Amino acid sequence: MKIEVINTGSELLLGRVVNTHLAFIGDSLFKLGLRVQRQICIPDGEEIRKAVKESLECSDVIIVTGGLGPTTDDITCEAVASLLNRPLHQNDTVIKHIESIFSSRGLELTEPNLSQALIPEGAEVLHNSNGTAPGIYFPAVADQSPHIFLLPGPPRELVPLFNDEVVPRLKNLRNSAAASLTHHNFKIIGVGESNLAHALDDDFQSIPELEVGYCCRLGEVDVRLIGDKNVVELGAELIRKKFTRETVTESEDPLEKVVVDLLIKSKQHISTAESCTGGLIASTITDVSGSSEIFNRSLITYANNAKTELLGIPADLIEQHGAVSDEVAHAMAEGCLRTSRSDHAIAVSGIAGPNGGTPDKPLGTVYIALASKNDLTFVGRFYFPVDRSSFKIRTTRAALDLLRQRLQGFKLS
Amino acid sequence: MKIEVINTGSELLLGRVVNTHLAFIGDSLFKLGLRVQRQICIPDGEEIRKAVKESLECSDVIIVTGGLGPTTDDITCEAVASLLNRPLHQNDTVIKHIESIFSSRGLELTEPNLSQALIPEGAEVLHNSNGTAPGIYFPAVADQSPHIFLLPGPPRELVPLFNDEVVPRLKNLRNSAAASLTHHNFKIIGVGESNLAHALDDDFQSIPELEVGYCCRLGEVDVRLIGDKNVVELGAELIRKKFTRETVTESEDPLEKVVVDLLIKSKQHISTAESCTGGLIASTITDVSGSSEIFNRSLITYANNAKTELLGIPADLIEQHGAVSDEVAHAMAEGCLRTSRSDHAIAVSGIAGPNGGTPDKPLGTVYIALASKNDLTFVGRFYFPVDRSSFKIRTTRAALDLLRQRLQGFKLS
Repeated sequence: MKIEVINTGSELLLGRVVNTHLAFIGDSLFKLGLRVQRQICIPDGEEIRKAVKESLECSDVIIVTGGLGPTTDDITCEAVASLLNRPLHQNDTVIKHIESIFSSRGLELTEPNLSQALIPEGAEVLHNSNGTAPGIYFPAVADQSPHIFLLPGPPRELVPLFNDEVVPRLKNLRNSAAASLTHHNFKIIGVGESNLAHALDDDFQSIPELEVGYCCRLGEVDVRLIGDKNVVELGAELIRKKFTRETVTESEDPLEKVVVDLLIKSKQHISTAESCTGGLIASTITDVSGSSEIFNRSLITYANNAKTELLGIPADLIEQHGAVSDEVAHAMAEGCLRTSRSDHAIAVSGIAGPNGGTPDKPLGTVYIALASKNDLTFVGRFYFPVDRSSFKIRTTRAALDLLRQRLQGFKLS
Repeated sequence: MKIEVINTGSELLLGRVVNTHLAFIGDSLFKLGLRVQRQICIPDGEEIRKAVKESLECSDVIIVTGGLGPTTDDITCEAVASLLNRPLHQNDTVIKHIESIFSSRGLELTEPNLSQALIPEGAEVLHNSNGTAPGIYFPAVADQSPHIFLLPGPPRELVPLFNDEVVPRLKNLRNSAAASLTHHNFKIIGVGESNLAHALDDDFQSIPELEVGYCCRLGEVDVRLIGDKNVVELGAELIRKKFTRETVTESEDPLEKVVVDLLIKSKQHISTAESCTGGLIASTITDVSGSSEIFNRSLITYANNAKTELLGIPADLIEQHGAVSDEVAHAMAEGCLRTSRSDHAIAVSGIAGPNGGTPDKPLGTVYIALASKNDLTFVGRFYFPVDRSSFKIRTTRAALDLLRQRLQGFKLS
């Protein structure tokens, strides 16, 4: 099954936005045993006609993203409909959906919005729960044309629509041969990608049918095993044996979900006292739905006087060791544990940059402390010499991973 | 000048890696007054022949990434050389470079690595300071073929090579017509994309040479004007007139940078008291380098008792109005202003979902308050019926935008 992805959007070609659709769609298809054969990115506007026309001749499935909005350069639907000679009809269900979105937001409906309710004859509406532009599916007609999906461009509209409306249709389309492929994912923290590959590749050579992929993202490595079921299980056993402690999860859950679930299960609360992360750890915890069960408060103590006033850190201690130190991180965690009455408290103090490094404590140095009601306070020194925003993410992950290890019964040292 | 980008790499199509090359190249070209016309992504291997062949006929410049490595599916160089009928010759400078890299890493050179030193006749070597595979440049031959650049796939090799070797050559190629193209960006908050387009499109029709693009991202709309200088200025004036208050910036800066700069300029501090955003507002502020000048602390008061203990909100008030209310947000902001001794305090309390909505206060309802030393406390009720993480981002933007408006002297109401 030849699948082609066409991404429309001048902002992608002008470099204003990174195209994340291809990776999302590629990954989703792969889980179905399918793969994208080719992807094209074109500007908004007339180019869509040419791109789809070319694809019609060489694809079994075409997935188009973008160009379904209400503005004048959004012509994807009209262009494809005219290529396939399908007249457009106003769809009442879509009109009602658009009206309900506008009225719920207290906005007035304008004429251009109603153009989004024009659906080509013979096409199916793919419900867009997060926006006004519906997706559109043209089923193949007697092998004369490919299956064509038109999807909205904003990721928060595309992703759920793809999962709910496109995936089930693709499942029906895919042939059984491809379906026998299985995959398994490990999320690992605390080992670099090349060290991980180095440690595993010799073992994996004994399983030549196993396809292994590594994907490293700011302190996390995803290891993906692909092959038939038995082969994947053999590979998974090897990873479990060598990287027990470092394995965050074998599910698709992010680290913060793993941590929040562990806390909910053990009915424990977490608080944070954050300096260099500026609240990102707390925000990441509260990204998880249900986190209010285990999260009560956090203190963002950016300035030294905030550390003293809110966490009771003696000004002397900061004076003596500096705010970025083992001693201050230790005191921050214990101060936070005490004032919040939580079961665990994470504290971080570091140098995010781009200024403020010293020879002893270069840019990217951070102390992460974990204090717990029933355990010794742990402080670790980490070094993430990366840009400011990556530094905050890596520090957040390292901190949450320390808590994950403690909650899973690993001794921190 | 028609420029096409061809990205090779199965990992991009399988969704293992996000394609960041297009955004990087698109942005770099745009700064030169050039733009990518079309981008294609194809798997490793034979597909490259077909893709380049098609591009030869319709491009002035082709930029290919990937497929220059030492493995058997790396055939970009050989494929393009054979399309152009160029024999390959071993290049001594490249051999020496490869040898020096291997010896510095203590590795032994293998035969496949030397294949990277085969350079097509008439092509120029583009030095790769971070890897063994050189880039290759085929200058156009008497307008019979386009200019072709072959670049290594790994970003840490491609980026410096592009800046050092490709950009200067493109500068020479760019013709004066393309160079006269200018662009101007507006970031607007508080108006939806379709309402914005509706309000502007009639006016813009009087400037048919002006290209206008809209890009909407979670509460922000980027309006991009492209054309020659005078035409863009005409369009910019129209936007300035209609959307004075809603224009966050005409620079490339994000909202948080605009706000932090305004605070630095006026030597004022901001603190936040956050419930539903869980620290995201503070984290976003501290994403800006230099924010320690204007940011001292924040309190994340997720639970009701945290609001009482840390901000002095009477338990009665919460009992009477609910935590998600005008009254509590108001008290949170004023409590935060008082305890932090900052010049401004933002407070948010809302229902991020997916649970917890009521008919009166459905999911997505949020109260945002702004208290200031020298101004009345403002509270607004907002409604962002989107997924949890988008809700947090939209609330953060709305809150920072209120502060932006106040700092710029707009009266909040």
